[in-house]
Amino acid sequence: MSVVLLSGGVGGARMARGLAAALPAGALKILVNTGDDFDHYGLRICPDLDTVTYTLGGVSDEARGWGRRDESWAFLDSLGALGGETWFQLGDRDLALHVLRSWMLRQGSRPTEVAAHMAARFGIGAALLPMADEPVATMLETDQGLLSFQDYFVRHRSGPRVLSVRFDGAAQAAPTAELRAALADPALEMIVIAPSNPFLSIDPILAVPGLRDALSGAGVPVVAVSPIVGGAAVKGPLAAILEGYGLAVSPASIAAHYRGLLDGFVIDEADAALAGGFGADAPPVLVTGTMMTGPEASRRLADAVLAFGRDLAGGAAHGR
Amino acid sequence: MSVVLLSGGVGGARMARGLAAALPAGALKILVNTGDDFDHYGLRICPDLDTVTYTLGGVSDEARGWGRRDESWAFLDSLGALGGETWFQLGDRDLALHVLRSWMLRQGSRPTEVAAHMAARFGIGAALLPMADEPVATMLETDQGLLSFQDYFVRHRSGPRVLSVRFDGAAQAAPTAELRAALADPALEMIVIAPSNPFLSIDPILAVPGLRDALSGAGVPVVAVSPIVGGAAVKGPLAAILEGYGLAVSPASIAAHYRGLLDGFVIDEADAALAGGFGADAPPVLVTGTMMTGPEASRRLADAVLAFGRDLAGGAAHGR
Repeated sequence: MSVVLLSGGVGGARMARGLAAALPAGALKILVNTGDDFDHYGLRICPDLDTVTYTLGGVSDEARGWGRRDESWAFLDSLGALGGETWFQLGDRDLALHVLRSWMLRQGSRPTEVAAHMAARFGIGAALLPMADEPVATMLETDQGLLSFQDYFVRHRSGPRVLSVRFDGAAQAAPTAELRAALADPALEMIVIAPSNPFLSIDPILAVPGLRDALSGAGVPVVAVSPIVGGAAVKGPLAAILEGYGLAVSPASIAAHYRGLLDGFVIDEADAALAGGFGADAPPVLVTGTMMTGPEASRRLADAVLAFGRDLAGGAAHGR
Repeated sequence: MSVVLLSGGVGGARMARGLAAALPAGALKILVNTGDDFDHYGLRICPDLDTVTYTLGGVSDEARGWGRRDESWAFLDSLGALGGETWFQLGDRDLALHVLRSWMLRQGSRPTEVAAHMAARFGIGAALLPMADEPVATMLETDQGLLSFQDYFVRHRSGPRVLSVRFDGAAQAAPTAELRAALADPALEMIVIAPSNPFLSIDPILAVPGLRDALSGAGVPVVAVSPIVGGAAVKGPLAAILEGYGLAVSPASIAAHYRGLLDGFVIDEADAALAGGFGADAPPVLVTGTMMTGPEASRRLADAVLAFGRDLAGGAAHGR
């Protein structure tokens, strides 16, 4: 058996941790958004891949929500003293990953190979698959102009109103051989879309040509977990983006966004009253606890999602 | 008035500190060996420039003999854990210099401009001038094959016998405009060759086409301080290299190596008995304390060398 997870950063990483604990070693394949990747001082930074790697590797800083725990900042202090920019916080330990990755890429390794090397070094059994080896850049048209994701999220602290999102380079990207193999695996049981930001974390993945069709054509249930709980986003700028688009901050907006892709939709108990209201063509809905407050909560959600997906597969609900 | 110092690493840095203290602000121009520069994980490392920068910037680790004091090693620990090589010890604070420099070079800055930026950031009044903007690589033919300087010095701990030294790229290098201006400055009083390794630190500088002639043609005394004291090298592999060449570990070998270039030669009191034995065509010799055990000792040596050079200038001894 195997499961493919579509993942952004923190929400995806926590879902991945739960699924990795629930599944046999090697059964989880994580398709990670690379639309936020960028170059900083000549170093290739991959925020979502790094968050998933550090979380599954057991070294993430859960309190801060990004980067490594037991981190130190001597490099950043010194960089600032030399007149360098410090808006993007590079920790001393974190930096090793970026320096080694950048060097491996310059030596000719593919991003997929680099991600696999790092995962192995952190003792991660799951496969970490960048959504593409080609560079794709998530760009936000906002009321303060066109911004890269980092500009919007870190520099502007998600303040500007988002008018539209585009994925530069996506048209030139293609699913990697590893990714196609994961989706074509006869042992594939289901595809899970993590409770990540649909517009900024999952849409870039779906924008890779052929990938959306490959997901639908895999012949297994596709199940999404709502990142909206009780009228708010669990983390990040999703609520502001929904409001900017004139959409309700509700799981209904998420279900509508993924219309045609899902065979099952998972919402939190806080939103149980909404379960019947997603429309006549809405997929089956599972109501369960979705707040991944720790490894145990992640594992419970993973178990519920896996059982839900298997029920859907048994009912052959994925007949698209 | 101004003084040009030819410098390698530690010996040159200590001489520079003494001269900087003895001279008015801005009067010292340091021509630094870049033959040891190399790329490591995509970062441009400039060992001699960095040693001079850290020493004059007051942040060098005097006990260890290289790098910054109050250094930490979280990056290197993490790099090793990720399977990276750790033979070249990159400290967290040191790394900021390399990352920023490498990025500035990729953005199109010349090495001379980068060195000036870093010097200014460390509050250094002296001018730090790389011997050339073009890359030059000191390569050692040894009994264990051809080695780069770092391979020889760090990896092999100066163990192999050196048969010859060459400077790859030197033929394509040229003195920078800043360097030519320093040597053409009407205020130039003298040129000092630091007690650095003649074969590995000073010869690369002299190998830049036109530079040796520019030194001789500057019309001021050229004074070298012997890096050999009491039959031993103060630091580094110089004694082993002299022995490998079949030369005596004596200031006489240094004087012979610089034959035709010097107007004055400075040796330590420990070698006072040798002062008259450098041959009929030998330049005037100053015997003084040359062991730069601290800033005060560096300052005393600088004062003595400056007085010696001024005496030589007064006597018009530099009539080549």
